[in-house]
Amino acid sequence: MSDTTGKVITCKAAVCWGAGEPLKLEDVEVAPPKAHEVRIKVLYTGICHTDEYTRSGSDPEGAFPVILGHEGGGIVESIGEGVTSVKVGDHVIPLYTAECRECKFCKSGKTNLCSSVRATQGQGLMPDKSSRFTIKGREILHFMGTSTFSQYTVVADVSVVAVNPAAPLNKVCLLGCGITTGWGAVAKQPGVEGSNVAVFGCGCVGLSAINGANLVKASRIIAVDTNPAKEAWAKKFGATEFVNPKDLPAGKRIQDHLVEITDGGLDFTFDATGNVDVMRAALEACHKGWGVSTVIGVAAAGKEISTRPFQLVTGRVWRGTAFGGVKGRTELPGIVDDYLKGSVKVDEYVTHEFSLADINKGFEAMHSGDCIRAVVDMS
Amino acid sequence: MSDTTGKVITCKAAVCWGAGEPLKLEDVEVAPPKAHEVRIKVLYTGICHTDEYTRSGSDPEGAFPVILGHEGGGIVESIGEGVTSVKVGDHVIPLYTAECRECKFCKSGKTNLCSSVRATQGQGLMPDKSSRFTIKGREILHFMGTSTFSQYTVVADVSVVAVNPAAPLNKVCLLGCGITTGWGAVAKQPGVEGSNVAVFGCGCVGLSAINGANLVKASRIIAVDTNPAKEAWAKKFGATEFVNPKDLPAGKRIQDHLVEITDGGLDFTFDATGNVDVMRAALEACHKGWGVSTVIGVAAAGKEISTRPFQLVTGRVWRGTAFGGVKGRTELPGIVDDYLKGSVKVDEYVTHEFSLADINKGFEAMHSGDCIRAVVDMS
Repeated sequence: MSDTTGKVITCKAAVCWGAGEPLKLEDVEVAPPKAHEVRIKVLYTGICHTDEYTRSGSDPEGAFPVILGHEGGGIVESIGEGVTSVKVGDHVIPLYTAECRECKFCKSGKTNLCSSVRATQGQGLMPDKSSRFTIKGREILHFMGTSTFSQYTVVADVSVVAVNPAAPLNKVCLLGCGITTGWGAVAKQPGVEGSNVAVFGCGCVGLSAINGANLVKASRIIAVDTNPAKEAWAKKFGATEFVNPKDLPAGKRIQDHLVEITDGGLDFTFDATGNVDVMRAALEACHKGWGVSTVIGVAAAGKEISTRPFQLVTGRVWRGTAFGGVKGRTELPGIVDDYLKGSVKVDEYVTHEFSLADINKGFEAMHSGDCIRAVVDMS
Repeated sequence: MSDTTGKVITCKAAVCWGAGEPLKLEDVEVAPPKAHEVRIKVLYTGICHTDEYTRSGSDPEGAFPVILGHEGGGIVESIGEGVTSVKVGDHVIPLYTAECRECKFCKSGKTNLCSSVRATQGQGLMPDKSSRFTIKGREILHFMGTSTFSQYTVVADVSVVAVNPAAPLNKVCLLGCGITTGWGAVAKQPGVEGSNVAVFGCGCVGLSAINGANLVKASRIIAVDTNPAKEAWAKKFGATEFVNPKDLPAGKRIQDHLVEITDGGLDFTFDATGNVDVMRAALEACHKGWGVSTVIGVAAAGKEISTRPFQLVTGRVWRGTAFGGVKGRTELPGIVDDYLKGSVKVDEYVTHEFSLADINKGFEAMHSGDCIRAVVDMS
């Protein structure tokens, strides 16, 4: 038990007051955790495009004022009544995809999409429909059930997992979203071993998909990106080939090129761009009869994917995953261990580091082609 | 060996001379089978919407003059050199989806889409790029590798299968397309047992999908059709419920209604309409996290399916099948045996019967809501 147990903690947080506004450093009051809640001292957090999607105002469901951030690593400061899954002092990763092990989804054994806190999380609130954040009494909303852009945050006990304390939190915080999302989409897809694979988009998610394909021993891993600088990145993570759609002859579609160079198409493709046209190309680059295309990226509001149904009737499968299909509480500790053993790459993604005071520079860096992941030191 | 072996046979066939024209009864010369070809005396043929799709001119790849028909039953009249899979006198069903057992597709073990005769079949020709049909010397095209609207037809040996001669060919001819397509789409889909299922469209394909769901013991089988007369049909084939989208309150979408009455959506849905809007509804009626939607119906040229990628990212799967995923030579004899044992329904689909001279009446009947399948007696 620490000195702060049961008390309101006032700390620094980067607050987004409205759509399109830069984050503003504020003194925030963080209430103690209620029953089945956990208060975490956040030490590091990554910045992800999903944070920017809401900050920029592109997300029609974005609500303000809010404390963003969902890719964090920290230490449990205190726990509420009934919390048994983590204890004070545990090194933890907050989970925007909860795992209650009791809902219809968790019990199905077919999906990682837990429904336990979904409704309130979407509203920016804790499961009891209130917030733990205030600024001079004014309520500030939570984000994705995690709000890691605060030095202290409160999460539901189903939304956090303890990991091996030997793992550096300034690195494994990235397992809270991007890396796990890409790695899991590939590693948890049966049949990739010995197959040919294409990954569209070589950001953090795409690179981790490439890493996953490499780890499960895909025979051929084609990385696709319009930024030529990504070739070296892709190969560092295990890509065997790199294709830049801009280098193709005028009018040549990327899917047609890929079908040609693979004697009929890919066994598996993965979209890590969030661009619906690329999602279509990824499907149509699949081999007739058995190719499987997985949508990993999150598209902008209102965007739709399309194709001719003939693509499906002739044996292609269109699917998707969220958080890589990974059940956070059950599986994330093992991924951290795999990282410590040297198989799952994590350190390599961190290209930029910022202090909390400079968090807006992290958002700027994300828009540059040379940033894979920016990590913010919350101290 | 029969008297006609090695000779040209002149017989009656229903020829389509051009897009949109009615079929015309003609005297057609049918050349003897070349190596790896089989000449069949066609006794019965069903009429399918795919025949009408080409006849009407809707198919941009339709070529004329042509002998349509792909749902036939007949007896082997003679065989070409090297044919070992069938012999003279065998009762056979022509297969528009060939099975060569040697191509990349057949050997993959993942699909029934054999590539052996695909290119020439699409051109209306035999594998040696010529036709076996002439009228006074003028070449008439084949269709789907089968051309069952002729009293005699020639097919590749990979495009025909012998079945139990105890099975009445005026019934099991329907296993050459519609019934197998619907039944296979469901029966060959793992996981349907004990699940809830919706089938959109209650024509021959939809009803056989319902029959398939019933045979594999789906727990709940919801049939969807805008024709109220189809309720009785659907229940006869095993549907537990019937929903008519036209009976819903104004503005209520069928997918939203189905999600409501199934506590979150269907485990499996099947589109047997060919309508791209219905295909979308079928996907979106699936349960988040695991619902699988299968496109069975063939859409009109140029039509595209669309949805928000969020539908896939949240765990729904969009796939399709052709000919129910059934490998014709390997699996069709077993389906015929299952019919003879009384499990797979076949007789029940035949609502109309016509003579060859009245084949155009069969096309008219197909457009009426009370026709499930019309069978033509070729004698």
